[in-house]
Parts: sequence; structure tokens; C-alpha cells
Amino acid sequence: MPFKVDLNCDMGESFGAYQMGNDAEILEFVSSANIACGFHAGDPSAMRRTVRLALEKGVGIGAHPGTPDLVGFGRRTMALSPEEAHDLVVYQIGALDAFIRAEGGAMQHVKPHGALYNMAAQDVRLSEAIAEAVYQVNPELILFGLSGSELIRAGEKAGLRTASEVFSDRTYGPDGSLTDRRQTNALLTDPEEAIAQVVRMVKEGKVRATDGTDVDLKADTICIHGDGVTALDFARRISEQLPTEGVEVGAIGSFN
Amino acid sequence: MPFKVDLNCDMGESFGAYQMGNDAEILEFVSSANIACGFHAGDPSAMRRTVRLALEKGVGIGAHPGTPDLVGFGRRTMALSPEEAHDLVVYQIGALDAFIRAEGGAMQHVKPHGALYNMAAQDVRLSEAIAEAVYQVNPELILFGLSGSELIRAGEKAGLRTASEVFSDRTYGPDGSLTDRRQTNALLTDPEEAIAQVVRMVKEGKVRATDGTDVDLKADTICIHGDGVTALDFARRISEQLPTEGVEVGAIGSFN
Amino acid sequence: MPFKVDLNCDMGESFGAYQMGNDAEILEFVSSANIACGFHAGDPSAMRRTVRLALEKGVGIGAHPGTPDLVGFGRRTMALSPEEAHDLVVYQIGALDAFIRAEGGAMQHVKPHGALYNMAAQDVRLSEAIAEAVYQVNPELILFGLSGSELIRAGEKAGLRTASEVFSDRTYGPDGSLTDRRQTNALLTDPEEAIAQVVRMVKEGKVRATDGTDVDLKADTICIHGDGVTALDFARRISEQLPTEGVEVGAIGSFN
Amino acid sequence: MPFKVDLNCDMGESFGAYQMGNDAEILEFVSSANIACGFHAGDPSAMRRTVRLALEKGVGIGAHPGTPDLVGFGRRTMALSPEEAHDLVVYQIGALDAFIRAEGGAMQHVKPHGALYNMAAQDVRLSEAIAEAVYQVNPELILFGLSGSELIRAGEKAGLRTASEVFSDRTYGPDGSLTDRRQTNALLTDPEEAIAQVVRMVKEGKVRATDGTDVDLKADTICIHGDGVTALDFARRISEQLPTEGVEVGAIGSFN
Repeated sequence: MPFKVDLNCDMGESFGAYQMGNDAEILEFVSSANIACGFHAGDPSAMRRTVRLALEKGVGIGAHPGTPDLVGFGRRTMALSPEEAHDLVVYQIGALDAFIRAEGGAMQHVKPHGALYNMAAQDVRLSEAIAEAVYQVNPELILFGLSGSELIRAGEKAGLRTASEVFSDRTYGPDGSLTDRRQTNALLTDPEEAIAQVVRMVKEGKVRATDGTDVDLKADTICIHGDGVTALDFARRISEQLPTEGVEVGAIGSFN
Repeated sequence: MPFKVDLNCDMGESFGAYQMGNDAEILEFVSSANIACGFHAGDPSAMRRTVRLALEKGVGIGAHPGTPDLVGFGRRTMALSPEEAHDLVVYQIGALDAFIRAEGGAMQHVKPHGALYNMAAQDVRLSEAIAEAVYQVNPELILFGLSGSELIRAGEKAGLRTASEVFSDRTYGPDGSLTDRRQTNALLTDPEEAIAQVVRMVKEGKVRATDGTDVDLKADTICIHGDGVTALDFARRISEQLPTEGVEVGAIGSFN
Repeated sequence: MPFKVDLNCDMGESFGAYQMGNDAEILEFVSSANIACGFHAGDPSAMRRTVRLALEKGVGIGAHPGTPDLVGFGRRTMALSPEEAHDLVVYQIGALDAFIRAEGGAMQHVKPHGALYNMAAQDVRLSEAIAEAVYQVNPELILFGLSGSELIRAGEKAGLRTASEVFSDRTYGPDGSLTDRRQTNALLTDPEEAIAQVVRMVKEGKVRATDGTDVDLKADTICIHGDGVTALDFARRISEQLPTEGVEVGAIGSFN
Repeated sequence: MPFKVDLNCDMGESFGAYQMGNDAEILEFVSSANIACGFHAGDPSAMRRTVRLALEKGVGIGAHPGTPDLVGFGRRTMALSPEEAHDLVVYQIGALDAFIRAEGGAMQHVKPHGALYNMAAQDVRLSEAIAEAVYQVNPELILFGLSGSELIRAGEKAGLRTASEVFSDRTYGPDGSLTDRRQTNALLTDPEEAIAQVVRMVKEGKVRATDGTDVDLKADTICIHGDGVTALDFARRISEQLPTEGVEVGAIGSFN
């Protein structure tokens, strides 16, 4: 097929006695897994279990480093210095990598989580610190970032392969940013509309913004949510429908 | 020289605004560094700084994984299952390894910390879980354990190279165990006596136990403390005196 | 009615994005709530929500202090010194008490959680440290402990009112201890059998042990589990059936 | 004497094996102690020890609640919701209060720490949430905040007694804000100059700003640092010199 795209999903977010997500189910439909590394979610045992599951399913495995904010699930903006961000990314990549190596696999990518992802999208110094951290640990890793963001730019500058990420269920502003979740028009709730948006993003590199204009973006990988019945249904649907639209789904690391 | 021994010291134990230890000073006298990995002590930034220091000094670098007990400094016995111990050792080795790789070095060894070390010395299943964790991440790593302990046995069984550790300032019971710290005769406070004990352990593989009998042990590496002025003086003294006794000091990984 | 008993349940165990338990549902059937205080489970916001719920339902509110072991849910035995146990009990009682006071209520009791409860059942010094902690913060608090345990004895010695706890779904050994959960006969799975055991414990102060002998115990309060559909059904059933057996259910603090 | 002022100092910041500060020494010179409550610093045992010390010295005791950011020492700005701030303030006040009650004392005040203090100085909703939390736990508590800040305003609105805080060693901008620490003129390093600034703030309610204009402020309490030899010397000096200038030093709670 002429078009290819990766479907990624956050997972490994259980912590101790606390269960979260449907990792085994969602892994049927995605091609890449972002595994939490113990800072915003996850613990060593959850990491081992999730790495094993992901290897069994043959998906691309990535580290999903977050801020040291377990109670806030890594979603609260936090004034990290570039050095702090660098170091906690190195730490978390390494921790996950050891489980992947212990299980005989290899890490494919790194995708910052939550507030770290959002801060890095806009902050040059923070995004450069993160990109350097990834490069220093392993220059072969693919850095995931919001399409058009500072993080993608920093990854390229650092010499990393990057994957521009788009969101199937979010609307975009005329500048290519995601509409703030607090806005009423932030989410696409109709699955057909969401899939049509994704198909156009992949094939044409464009999305219709909330003001009606077309915005250019790059869609190397699509973020899929794993929580809840609706999410699983949508994941199944998009993974089945994309090929019928001429878009092959596969792990980003398997593309040339 | 016919005899060789490694001098190792715990370091990288600072945490955020909390400073601990004299890492730069003690690194002048030891040949191997056990670096805390963020569970019982240390944080990502302390790990990066300490790895850099250790690489500059050219000492062997090891992971010093501990229990998830920061407030107890990893010293409180804790009922970890073998699986939990396995996973937290994998995690911590990986986290430190990423810093070493980012700085262009290679990890030499793994030495469990505090309660994890002590529990592993006596618990077969726990020590086997730890040894397997080390082996799975990297079979070239050297596992440090108390001379004569279950951890050394487990390391050998797993196929790892091991380093039997002795203590310069502790007394030994007739069964080769360390005298309980709560006993009045647990510590050797005279530096000359401590060094004489070490020299005999290295050269003869024997130590005079508290009941006056001789006990066999193996002295591949000597644990040196880094905290306080006395510790620094002792480290300097033992590192200078061992060569005059015909015992070469060097990183365990450099021995054949 | 001539007989009275309290039904207590652990709750407030959610943490950040992690949900646990069915607090609102189980509160319909119990008379006392043991609320997690942020060490083994719970966070400040969960504590406020749960205190409000409990006050709305009019149940007795207790602190449920645990070990500092979030990832282990406070279930792992841990070598706490009596001083450490004292201080973490004071801390956690205080933290919960502030929410209760802020909402206009008053704390009824303290029940140590998990490993802390089990260790205190057998360890004289630990149980005395816990009882003193409770007494020092508020001598009016009722201390919950396993019937016949050191914790009950320590509470009485400290001058506290105590509540002897029994378990509806656990079997007992001839010495009055709970059968180890790893034994196949540790649990009563038939609700009728469980309720019959409770009724006899309340009315006769006796339980048939696993060896067939009768053991004396005291049943001031019954531990009910809140997790899962089965637990809710059992809670409803026991709360409805006890009155038909002539046993009044009420918060321990309301009894004379 | 016609003028009165409180001297306050942060303390109780040790954590587990990590020592911080010279609490016993600095307590000789201050009239109020802000004790860390376990989130940004401190642990239950440190809290007990520090409360005892403070009661022995007869100083006013306050809770020093911080953000849940131990590795960042509570200094990193963090996007807390007003509800989150409310709840973590309730929690921390309660935890410290239990130690004070256990030792037979009474809490005098609450002073938010670090990033929480700075965010509350400027954020209306956050400061109102904090003030309400304090009021709900105990309306008699005195709320410390930066002179002229939103926190002082929120405290008054909530019905609390407030204490306007000034800094002896910081310079002020023409709007009454502290000069950013990253500016070269942020600190007063000459002790005489610092004391003169304080005396004028207390007596005239004015400070000379960095642009040479006079700014009005209120100086109920002066923040003194406890770390380092210089800090101790300065604390001694200011505590001795203020009375010679006609300014009485005492705990804020003892003033009318």
C-alpha cells in the first residue's frame, strides 16, 4: 500500500495493587506500545509483564517517561529544568530497556508522557534536553512528538529519527495545536469523523482546523486510547478500516 | 604482585537537596564504585553526576540496587517476593546503565544494598531471583555478595562471575557471618587491626573469628565506607598500605 | 437487642488516577469505616471525599494507618522500629483527623492496616508503640485489633478503649490465630457458614477452630471486605441477617 | 517597646538518613518555627523531634506544608488545582498537629513552603483554597504570607488572622515583589544593610525598592534562614540588634 501509519497506545500503567487499562486487549489493535516507566505510573513488575505482552504481540516497544508525579499521573505541568528533564528521561529509558533486554527484545521508540510531552511541545530548551537524553542512551531510538512541535524539531536537530504524532479524537486549531480540552469542541466523538480525519491526515498531510481552514501536519503515528470499552471499540475499528482506505498499519520502526 | 583485591565504596547517595557522602574524595582511594539507583537513595541527577565522577577517576562502576524504602535508606528488612526482588533489580540496573552508556562507559558489577544484601545473603530464593535478574540484563556483569553467602552461590549457579566481599571494620562469627552490629564487639575500631585483618583475608583466605577460631573466606573485594573524616582517612591508609604488603589494588573487572 | 456488633470496612484506598473499591456502596451496609491515610493507599483528595461520604452515611470514622509502602499496598512485613511505628501512626491519624475536623465530624477509632496490623498482633513493643501513639493524639479513640492479640493488650495497657476484631470469612487455628492465607482451608467461601461463624462469635464468644476444638474470642467488630460484587453481596447479607439473629449492628463508638 | 516583630525559620527538613539544617542552634534566635510536614521535606520522626525541640524552646510552632515534590524540595512550580492545594494543606496541617498535640502543645500558624508559597502569593484561587483549608481545620491558626500578596488577602477574606512576612536578605521591586533570585541585585549580602532594611520595614512599614522608590509593606514576621554558619550568625545578630533598636522580638501568637 502506498500509505503507512503506526498506531500507538499508552500502557503498563498499573501500579502495585492498582490496576489500570486493558493492555492485553488493546495490544490486538495497535502497532506500538508506550510503556510507563515508574514515575507517573507503572512499577517494575508491571513493566516486566507489559514488556512480555508487547513482545508476544510483536508490537514496537517504547519508553513512556513522565514527570515524578505519581499522584498527579504525570499530568500536572511542573517547572523541570532542562537538566532535570534530561536526567529523568535517561533514567526511565534505561529502566524500561533493561526489561526489554532481559526479555530478549529491543526498544523502538521514546514518547514523553502527559505534562512532559506537552511542555516539550512548546519549550525549546526542554525538548532539546529530552532529545539529547534519548540520543545519548541510544541514537537508534525513534522520538515521538506532537506533529509540528518543538520536540520533533529538537529530535531532528539531535540526529534522531522522529515520528510525528497526530490524534484521532482531538480537534486542531489553525496553528496546528490541539484544541484545549476545556473547550467544548476539543473532542471528536463520532468514530467515523475521527477515522476520516486520520485518513486525511495520513494521505494528504492536512487537517481541517476548528476555524475551517486547512492545516498541514505529518502523521507518522496515531495516538489511540486504551481505557474503556469505547476506546477498545474505536481501536478495533480504526485498525480494521485504515487498510480498506489504502493505509497500512505497522510499527514505525518497520517502515523505511 | 601475587595478590590482588578490589576496594569498593557506596556512593551517589545524595537525593535532591539532600547531600550525602564525599564521593569525589573517596574516589581517590577505591577501585570500584557502587552507585545508588534511586530506590533507597540517589536520584537521576545524582546518578549522572556520580557516573561522570567515577568515569573520570577510572574506577569500576556498579549498580547498587536497594529496596523501595527511601525514608529507611533501604536498611529495613522487608518481605519482598523473589519476583519483586527480581524486577526491582532489573529496573535499577537498567536505570544506572543508561547513565553509564550516555557517558560512554560500561557497567562492571552489581551489589545489592542494605537490607536487600543482607536478606539475599541468607535467602536462597531471593538470591537466585537477584542473580537471574543480573544475568538476564547482562551476563557479563559481576555480582558482589558477602563471602560465603547464598548470593555468591546463586550468582555462580546463574552463570555469573561473582566477587566475594569482606569487611575491613567488622568482626566475624565462627560460621563466617558478620557479628551483629548490636554486639559490642561488632566493629574493629583500630585501623591497624582492620588493615591486618584485610591483609590476612586476602593473602590467606582466613579471618580470626570472635571465638578465636579461624574461618575460611574469600576476599575479592573489600567494602570501604565513605562517610566522615575517619572513613576517608582509613580509605587512604588501606589503599596505600595494601601495596606495601604485596597486595595490588584494582577494579575487580580488570583482574583475570 | 441483647447483642451488638460493629461492621467495619477498609476504604478511601483510591490514589490519584487509580480507583479502588466501592466506597459509596459498601457504606450502605457497614457501621464503621477505616480510611486509608496516604501511606499504603489513599491521597489527600481521596481522604476528603471518603470522609464526606462516611459522614453523610453516619458511620463511625477511623484512621487506617499503614506502612510507607504504596507499591506493596502496605501488605509487606517491614522491620519498623517501635519509634518509627509510633511516629507514622501519629502522622497518619493527624492527617485524617484534619479532614474529619474540616468536615465537622470526629474520629471514632484507629485500625492499623495490613502488615502493620499483623506485626502488631504479635509484637509487644510494636503494639505498645502504636497504642501509645493513639493515646497521645487522643485518649478517646478506640483501638481496633485482632481479638486476643498483643495490640488489644497494648491498647488496654495504654488506657485506651479497644475493639476486638473478628473475621467472617477466615478460619481460625486452635490458638485463636487466623489460618495462614496460603493454606487451602484459610477462607470460608460459603456465605451462610461465614454468617453462622460470626453469629456464634458474637453471641457465644467462641469459634470452631480448624482442628475442631472451640476457641474463645471476643467479637466487638467484624471486618467486611468492600472489593468486588461478592463482597458487596456478602456485606448486604450479613448486615440484614444479623438483626434477625438478635444481633444489633452499630458503630462501636455508639455502644456503651 | 512600641514595635514588635516575629522571627520565623523553616526547620524539621531532615528526611530519613538525610540530615538538613541546624534546628537546635537556630531555635535559640527565632520566635516561630515552620516545620516541614513530609511532602517537600521532613518525615514523621523528624517532625516529632522538631516539635519537641520547638516546645522546649518555647517558640511558636507552625505547619510548613509543601508540594508533593520531595526530590525538588517543593521548590518547583507545579500546576496544582485549588482543590488539590486545599487537600494537601489540610493533610499536612493535620499530620503536624497530631505531633504537637501528642507533645502537649498547640499549633500557632501555617506558612506554605517554596513553590506553594510563591504560587499562592499571586494566584487568587489557589490562595483562597489554602486559606479555606487552614480555616476549616482550625480558625484560630495564623496564616503567614508574603506582605501584600494574594495569600494575605485570602486569609483575611477567610476570616483568619494573618501575618505579613518580609525578607531581611532580599531586595524588593517597586511593586513590592521580591527581586527574582536570578537577578544580580536580588540579595542583600551585608548584614548591617539587611538589619537596617528590617528595622525600617518594622518601624516605618516601608522598604527602598531597587529603583530607589519607597514601597509600603507590613512586617509582622521576618523570614530567617537556618542553613550554614553565616545564617546562624545573622540570626544571632538580628535577634540581638532588634531590641536595641526598640523592636521587641516574640512569637506572633503572643502579640495582640
